[in-house]
Amino acid sequence: MKHFIATAVFILFSGVLLAQEKPYNVVFDLTSKDTADQKTVIRWIRGITSSNPAAKLEVVLYGQSLDMVTKGKSIVAYAVEEFAATKNISFVVCAASMKRHNLNVAQLIPGVTTVPDGIYEIISKQGEGWGYIKVAH
Amino acid sequence: MKHFIATAVFILFSGVLLAQEKPYNVVFDLTSKDTADQKTVIRWIRGITSSNPAAKLEVVLYGQSLDMVTKGKSIVAYAVEEFAATKNISFVVCAASMKRHNLNVAQLIPGVTTVPDGIYEIISKQGEGWGYIKVAH
Amino acid sequence: MKHFIATAVFILFSGVLLAQEKPYNVVFDLTSKDTADQKTVIRWIRGITSSNPAAKLEVVLYGQSLDMVTKGKSIVAYAVEEFAATKNISFVVCAASMKRHNLNVAQLIPGVTTVPDGIYEIISKQGEGWGYIKVAH
Repeated sequence: MKHFIATAVFILFSGVLLAQEKPYNVVFDLTSKDTADQKTVIRWIRGITSSNPAAKLEVVLYGQSLDMVTKGKSIVAYAVEEFAATKNISFVVCAASMKRHNLNVAQLIPGVTTVPDGIYEIISKQGEGWGYIKVAH
Repeated sequence: MKHFIATAVFILFSGVLLAQEKPYNVVFDLTSKDTADQKTVIRWIRGITSSNPAAKLEVVLYGQSLDMVTKGKSIVAYAVEEFAATKNISFVVCAASMKRHNLNVAQLIPGVTTVPDGIYEIISKQGEGWGYIKVAH
Repeated sequence: MKHFIATAVFILFSGVLLAQEKPYNVVFDLTSKDTADQKTVIRWIRGITSSNPAAKLEVVLYGQSLDMVTKGKSIVAYAVEEFAATKNISFVVCAASMKRHNLNVAQLIPGVTTVPDGIYEIISKQGEGWGYIKVAH
């Protein structure tokens, strides 16, 4: 009997421990049209992935930040395309923001993907235990 | 006996599953006096609630953002009053910030409420599993 | 037998309750070089700790915010040193940002400490259940 309780307690606390350990998963919230913010995110991604190859990083772009992932407008196009091609880094654009800015999928830098709702994407990642960083300065 | 363990495990994993599913609950952190940020929050609320009628949204105002919910100063007064009258949307002002800005409750747009401490309100919502979005651009 | 189930359920729900109660623990994310943001954080810390002596507050400085904790450059040097000397308040600087700005530990205001990676420090605190506030306006 004690065994069964011990098992239940063990399972429970395993869950607690799992919930406490912190992999390097971050969702970056980027709404800024300021190219300094956009260059900063790229620098952070480069720094994080060089030290933590298993880090999962996602940049969610909505609001005024869409130039960063738009062909012919991005000042970090090469880096976005390079990073977006890797397994652990995603650039995700809010489709509602794209519509508002008359932007279509063909205009996005290769590898950049879309979600219907950028805010929901962010809070979903938060709900899965990802870290959250608002990019602003 | 197996039944009891199965029950315990089921309850445990139900808890885990419940913790993972993500309702559309968001607390917006607004400290900006920039009216562009204030209009942006209104646009987001309109977009979210039209697609997700059950979404619970709370805007916490502190720092420099109080004009947004002040009679005669807000440029989005009508929308604030309209949304604040609905069950799932709240505009909550930090009383400490109000005191600092010599603002009293009678000056707030109808439906806007107060909390003693805006930061504690935000982290409490985070602790309850709400998503967090800092409004800035 | 019922006793064992009750015990398991009790333990489980204790865990849930513990997860829901919210101590006043906040990590502030500060990347801004704007001295208004730096003064704001100091004002918040003073307000929070006067009402909540047990609050644990940590300011993580990276990006453009390092002047705030640099000798001879900070406009809130006295407050930083005063707060950093208390048990529950920390000012933590990203060592990668320091390197980028050619800043060494001797230039930091007494009591200010460093971490290898400011973003990982922030998401670790988030993972431990601390509240998160991005400082921006």
